[in-house]
Amino acid sequence: MRYTPKSELDQRIAKLQNAMRQHDIDGAVIVQNADLFYFAGTIQRSHLFVPSEGKPLLLVKKSLERAKEESPMDNVISLDSLKEFNAVLQKYGYGQFKTLGFELDVLPANLYVRYQKLVEPARIVDISQLIRAVRMVKSPYEIEILRDISKLHEEIFSLIRENMREGISELELTGIIAAASRKNGHSGLMRVRGMNQDLFFVHLLSGKNTFPSYFDGSVGGKGVSPAFAQGSSYKMIGRNEPVLLDYSFVLDGYMLDQTRIFCHGKLPDHLAGAHALAIDILKEIKKVARPGVACGKLYDVAMQMAGDSAYGKHFLGFPEPVAFVGHGIGIELDELPVIAHGFDIPLEEGMVIAIEPKFVFPDGAVGVENTYLVVKDGLENLTVFDEEIIYV
Amino acid sequence: MRYTPKSELDQRIAKLQNAMRQHDIDGAVIVQNADLFYFAGTIQRSHLFVPSEGKPLLLVKKSLERAKEESPMDNVISLDSLKEFNAVLQKYGYGQFKTLGFELDVLPANLYVRYQKLVEPARIVDISQLIRAVRMVKSPYEIEILRDISKLHEEIFSLIRENMREGISELELTGIIAAASRKNGHSGLMRVRGMNQDLFFVHLLSGKNTFPSYFDGSVGGKGVSPAFAQGSSYKMIGRNEPVLLDYSFVLDGYMLDQTRIFCHGKLPDHLAGAHALAIDILKEIKKVARPGVACGKLYDVAMQMAGDSAYGKHFLGFPEPVAFVGHGIGIELDELPVIAHGFDIPLEEGMVIAIEPKFVFPDGAVGVENTYLVVKDGLENLTVFDEEIIYV
Repeated sequence: MRYTPKSELDQRIAKLQNAMRQHDIDGAVIVQNADLFYFAGTIQRSHLFVPSEGKPLLLVKKSLERAKEESPMDNVISLDSLKEFNAVLQKYGYGQFKTLGFELDVLPANLYVRYQKLVEPARIVDISQLIRAVRMVKSPYEIEILRDISKLHEEIFSLIRENMREGISELELTGIIAAASRKNGHSGLMRVRGMNQDLFFVHLLSGKNTFPSYFDGSVGGKGVSPAFAQGSSYKMIGRNEPVLLDYSFVLDGYMLDQTRIFCHGKLPDHLAGAHALAIDILKEIKKVARPGVACGKLYDVAMQMAGDSAYGKHFLGFPEPVAFVGHGIGIELDELPVIAHGFDIPLEEGMVIAIEPKFVFPDGAVGVENTYLVVKDGLENLTVFDEEIIYV
Repeated sequence: MRYTPKSELDQRIAKLQNAMRQHDIDGAVIVQNADLFYFAGTIQRSHLFVPSEGKPLLLVKKSLERAKEESPMDNVISLDSLKEFNAVLQKYGYGQFKTLGFELDVLPANLYVRYQKLVEPARIVDISQLIRAVRMVKSPYEIEILRDISKLHEEIFSLIRENMREGISELELTGIIAAASRKNGHSGLMRVRGMNQDLFFVHLLSGKNTFPSYFDGSVGGKGVSPAFAQGSSYKMIGRNEPVLLDYSFVLDGYMLDQTRIFCHGKLPDHLAGAHALAIDILKEIKKVARPGVACGKLYDVAMQMAGDSAYGKHFLGFPEPVAFVGHGIGIELDELPVIAHGFDIPLEEGMVIAIEPKFVFPDGAVGVENTYLVVKDGLENLTVFDEEIIYV
């Protein structure tokens, strides 16, 4: 179990402060779990106050004892009631803000209104995109964690080979993978930033279980109920159909995203053909991608290749495709950058992106998803496992 | 797999409309998954518009096809862009609102600001407490689902008896329970309404793994990382220590909440004594509870009994106790009512409440949690399983 080192937090805070100064934001108040973990090393119930210059304060409601153990920050102090918020900040020399940044993409409206009253006459501005931009480029420390996850992914994907038999239900196989994951230290949860975007970490679908869903992903699945309308179902796994495993091991707060296709028997030609095309698309993207290239370019390359093929209308979801072929990943599943048309941010060393060319047909979904680290001369694959259809 | 019947949705909508009229709210716009599922029977990405009088509209972004299949509502229609929102409402005869209710306890601030512009000159008001009050009292249909879950809980708790051995890690045992749950149709996720309150559905802790946590529960646990700082850890289960299983099977969108204590060997006297007191507290609460009694009364009874004992300062968490001894439950873990001091809402037939007198010591947590249905003459336990310490 890792505790984020102080040097790491200091660098992150410095990057945020730099961005804040560029945008004339006097201070930031961070409260959401993913961001708290990133900037403070703990998710104990807290307000993390970051001034545009000077030392941050972690104001903890519960558990103070544990926040002190988990966070190496200099100022980890108690804040029992919001009424004391301004006074505590003043005590540390902070006050008279013109603008304060909050995570307005995830902060509930009621809290927003409450904070507005609390901090007036300061004006609340949205700092979520600055935070997400800071988190977009990973540090060597973060990449080290991702490399550990890479090894765990290899073990987990191997489990399918051993456990997939005809007549086992999607749910049972999902359970086997979940159990092995938890045993090896998986947190059991994965964080998604977008509202309503909840997802179990083992997304396993077979054959015709390719129903569209509310989730912003290309392959939905029936799920077990309209209340959680995606993912594995009671369906039994049969012969000659693809079994898609889209999986993330969450270790030390971080995750990768990886998809592979398994099959008993032999896939019909259209599925095998589309899968081969997905592999080709990844190869082509790898040729194009390097620091400085706009993210949107990778999407355009993928769309061009899929569009030129016989499988174009099944690319990235069917009947309604999603609008991206990849996404940043780290503490949350939906980090920046987005690999989508017109997304002009250039690739940068240290970005970590999942790229997922997938084809969805009424009788099955195929494709490959890898998570790549952007390095000096291109993309380094962190999810190395046979990309061909894996016949078991 | 159940699809919510139309008669059920009609009753729910009618209750909400009644509450809206009492509060002079002209319309409600519901977007959060739990509430969408409750009022529309689907969580496909949608806006559910409920006028204070007349028929509701489900405006669906994705997947329309699936929303039509899952929701028996009369008006399930496409809304591809928010720009068309007002026009679509007008087409169905709705407009010129003075006040519109939104779920401001869960709606992100950025969306709130966006909706404000969209619906002006209407004023947005918070309808979340009205919604939560409607959801608080369960229908016979909902209770039927809970009774099905009750049977599944019995199976799952029996699994501990079969699988708990000395030297198995908390995480491995958690995985076994998770796998059996998924196999039997558990959704893999449980919904909690409060911000940042994420929780894996198998909360299993042994011996000294009783660390406090960010979560608003009495027993935290170390977890696998400061990024998910609660729950099962790598710790091996030993002799003469309590193993606490706090568990919820989520079926057809609903859940119960149940806690039992298991042990190899024999518990030390203080833990056995505190556990016996927890059972007594539940018995006393059962004597007092009936429709019309204020929820706070149950909390006061529990606090009185714990306070009179040698274990008072370990009640409901240590070193920082939580402020409630129970909570409503259904689609979300943290529903109304709250069983806490001063919570004056009277118990009502059809409420479903989890009551959880627990004692937390540095060397172990003990106690019992049952979920009860409020019936005419008191409480009916939906989580029947041996309440004594279960020696395995």
